[in-house]
Amino acid sequence: MEEIIPHWLNKQASLAPSQVAIEELDGSTLTFLQLQKESSTYARKLASWGITEGSHVGILSTNCKEMVIAIHALSYLGAVAVLLNTRLTIAELNFQLTDAEVSFLLTEQDKFDQAKELQVENYKAFSALTAFPERNIELVKEIKLNKVFTIIYTSGTTGHPKGVIHTYGNHWWSAIGSALNLGINPADKWLAALPIFHVSGLSILIRSVVYGMSVFLLNKFDAAAVHDAIMNRNVTMVSVVTIMLQQLLNFHQDDTYPKSFRCMLLGGGPAPKPLLQQARDRNIPVFQSFGMTETASQIVTLSAKDALQKVGSAGKPLLPAQLKINNPNEQSIGEIYVKGPMITKGYYKNNYATENAFIDGWLATGDLGYLDSEDFLYVVDRRTDLIISGGENIYPSELESVLTGMKQIKEIAVIGMKDSTWGEVPVAFIVTEDELLNAEEVLAYAESHLAKYKLPREIIFVKELPRNASNKIVRKDLYSYLPGKEE
Amino acid sequence: MEEIIPHWLNKQASLAPSQVAIEELDGSTLTFLQLQKESSTYARKLASWGITEGSHVGILSTNCKEMVIAIHALSYLGAVAVLLNTRLTIAELNFQLTDAEVSFLLTEQDKFDQAKELQVENYKAFSALTAFPERNIELVKEIKLNKVFTIIYTSGTTGHPKGVIHTYGNHWWSAIGSALNLGINPADKWLAALPIFHVSGLSILIRSVVYGMSVFLLNKFDAAAVHDAIMNRNVTMVSVVTIMLQQLLNFHQDDTYPKSFRCMLLGGGPAPKPLLQQARDRNIPVFQSFGMTETASQIVTLSAKDALQKVGSAGKPLLPAQLKINNPNEQSIGEIYVKGPMITKGYYKNNYATENAFIDGWLATGDLGYLDSEDFLYVVDRRTDLIISGGENIYPSELESVLTGMKQIKEIAVIGMKDSTWGEVPVAFIVTEDELLNAEEVLAYAESHLAKYKLPREIIFVKELPRNASNKIVRKDLYSYLPGKEE
Repeated sequence: MEEIIPHWLNKQASLAPSQVAIEELDGSTLTFLQLQKESSTYARKLASWGITEGSHVGILSTNCKEMVIAIHALSYLGAVAVLLNTRLTIAELNFQLTDAEVSFLLTEQDKFDQAKELQVENYKAFSALTAFPERNIELVKEIKLNKVFTIIYTSGTTGHPKGVIHTYGNHWWSAIGSALNLGINPADKWLAALPIFHVSGLSILIRSVVYGMSVFLLNKFDAAAVHDAIMNRNVTMVSVVTIMLQQLLNFHQDDTYPKSFRCMLLGGGPAPKPLLQQARDRNIPVFQSFGMTETASQIVTLSAKDALQKVGSAGKPLLPAQLKINNPNEQSIGEIYVKGPMITKGYYKNNYATENAFIDGWLATGDLGYLDSEDFLYVVDRRTDLIISGGENIYPSELESVLTGMKQIKEIAVIGMKDSTWGEVPVAFIVTEDELLNAEEVLAYAESHLAKYKLPREIIFVKELPRNASNKIVRKDLYSYLPGKEE
Repeated sequence: MEEIIPHWLNKQASLAPSQVAIEELDGSTLTFLQLQKESSTYARKLASWGITEGSHVGILSTNCKEMVIAIHALSYLGAVAVLLNTRLTIAELNFQLTDAEVSFLLTEQDKFDQAKELQVENYKAFSALTAFPERNIELVKEIKLNKVFTIIYTSGTTGHPKGVIHTYGNHWWSAIGSALNLGINPADKWLAALPIFHVSGLSILIRSVVYGMSVFLLNKFDAAAVHDAIMNRNVTMVSVVTIMLQQLLNFHQDDTYPKSFRCMLLGGGPAPKPLLQQARDRNIPVFQSFGMTETASQIVTLSAKDALQKVGSAGKPLLPAQLKINNPNEQSIGEIYVKGPMITKGYYKNNYATENAFIDGWLATGDLGYLDSEDFLYVVDRRTDLIISGGENIYPSELESVLTGMKQIKEIAVIGMKDSTWGEVPVAFIVTEDELLNAEEVLAYAESHLAKYKLPREIIFVKELPRNASNKIVRKDLYSYLPGKEE
């Protein structure tokens, strides 16, 4: 039975017309009624351009009000939004545009020149649509939860990116799962600094229209702006990844966040424990979480009441979700499998990848983790990064986490290097601003914290770590630094 | 696509094991972990008795812990709970037991003697099951939202009651719709004094396992106990019908409820405006609502921010729901139609009633109402002459149908008379040719066929009933017979 609900933005325009939906850095706001009117108008203009139900429409933009309006407008037409990472190269974008069969592309003004080089029939800057007439059509009034709303490509550290299909239902269930864990408070205002072209950012917009909640929209992450928004703009919740948390902790270390600030939702992979402890010491309510594009954002999240006792854990699966550790080893570590109605039904036109990802209805995440005695999840590492040395498993994230405790180390990445004796040995790449720091000191610190077999065999100081468009470290690029080393 | 979620009670036992699920008047409590264990154990005992997936199991009980455990236990077996109104007569109960094809009946101790007279193959008191062994079976771990969970009878406008089928999804969506309106607060404790055999009481139990929220369970409504629970037991929300609100307002009029008390959810038909104003004057946060068994409890509810400005309105449809006024007259009044995933898919084995209730996917509620300029619903009246007495629905046609069985009665018409205590009470107008027939005889006959709350408060013998040109009874003309009574 397919479930049908009224269009969520219409609903909020009726239930909470004067509530602020979007607030920007310059103080300008859009209420839900205004957002609904602007999105409806924009939808009619998009219809004049030729966009219709089922059209695949690319969006190439950093966070801005126009992007939010465009996404809602597409929902009013029953069109599919293909959200593109603005950090990608032309070649990477063209792969996604072609793969997702995008026939229209909307861009922010700054990306318009780039669009000219892209393989897409129709493209316009958001603002160019204002000149279009409003086509007199019936807009979508009801959301069918089984209908496709968005396609977002996974960053693809191995092989070609895959287009993750999200139905309205996936987004809905994600928002509900989050609400049942974090609660719903009428005073909430959620800061969106994560890109909307990632599901982590997009999911904040969906929560906004499902809860009737204000979003504080930043064009991009900026520690000073986020700090100020928390301190002075009544922001109660923020989504961050590790590096952002790190920067926030370094910012005005003496400030205590207002009591109304109730959630720093931390995603994007395992976080170093010293960082989490530092946050705890400053009474910052960090909720670690685990999720991926396929799960429409967080699917496992620490709850408020467990945040202090379970530092380092990603928590428990959200109410509508299930979790299991597949084929655990002697240390109870195995691949994390998840299941739930927020999880994608598959990859766009990629049955092979879909079939490989799902086993008996469970999504095999490719991540390794274990459950403690109270069933709290600890994410250990990407299975693909696992280093096996002399029969012992070494998880790069563990070394990274420990060595981050050394205050001179700014960033670190660990990979496995082939070794004729041990099979593989770990090598650490370190970014530091301390010119006096040397390998001996690092090793001495490591020796005091890690079993001998886990110690990095080599320590290489680098200016910066290679990162992909999603700001994730591309470990495979580190292999070129190794002497006579191939992946 | 059928959605699947983990069993909600298992989930809360994992997410919030030590959180109180059920608190009783005597102070005894069950945590979610305890409730899950007791319900699982009870399920295995029920399995020994012979209950299996798809069994229809009647429950005849007033509110108690054992009833809650039994309902959850049935969900662990995939059995269907048929919730029976304890106020019904043997004849009325037998109709429902037979109609719903009930093969097992569980009762509270006090109702066990009554059960002996009922047409059901197997019956036991809750406590009798403790002697049973635990059958070693696999309990339900996942809830399929399309699966049937409960059947609750509702009186029909024409004669026989109809069994409203609720899937797990209906209950789930009802709980979520409520949460999106009223918010979710970890400190919430919801008082259940409404009978669990009504969907208004049952829905509190469902919210409890969906939110991980404590329920303060009362055997029955008692103004002193409810008042005390609000004042001294940290109850934050209470569901009431009009008569209960009235009694609460009369109770310790000088007391101001604690600030943490945040919702008096008022259902069960239109409430008199003076009562609502009185509540407002005492700063009691009354949220009027509209709903029925078919909508799995409230489907239209006033929100906190509108409660003061819109006294007398039932509010707006909950987020997943839609509302329209069908065929409005010159005063904009028409029949209330509703739509949404919390609404029943139909009546048990009664396609005729189901087809009549639904028009193009909308449920025709039989209630009349209008929307103000801001789309707030005002319920005007029952199109169907429904009498609401102390929160219970009484259909004149049912009384007329039953009493016509008395051969001395030639014609009969029943209407509702306003009553300061009950809101309304039924009055019967009878035409007879038997000069010896008196009110006592009629009442005696009625008592043997009808639940007590349905009994006519007055019986008025008339020479003939007022009829229009089409020979239909003109009920409104009957009101002139009532003492000091206007329509």
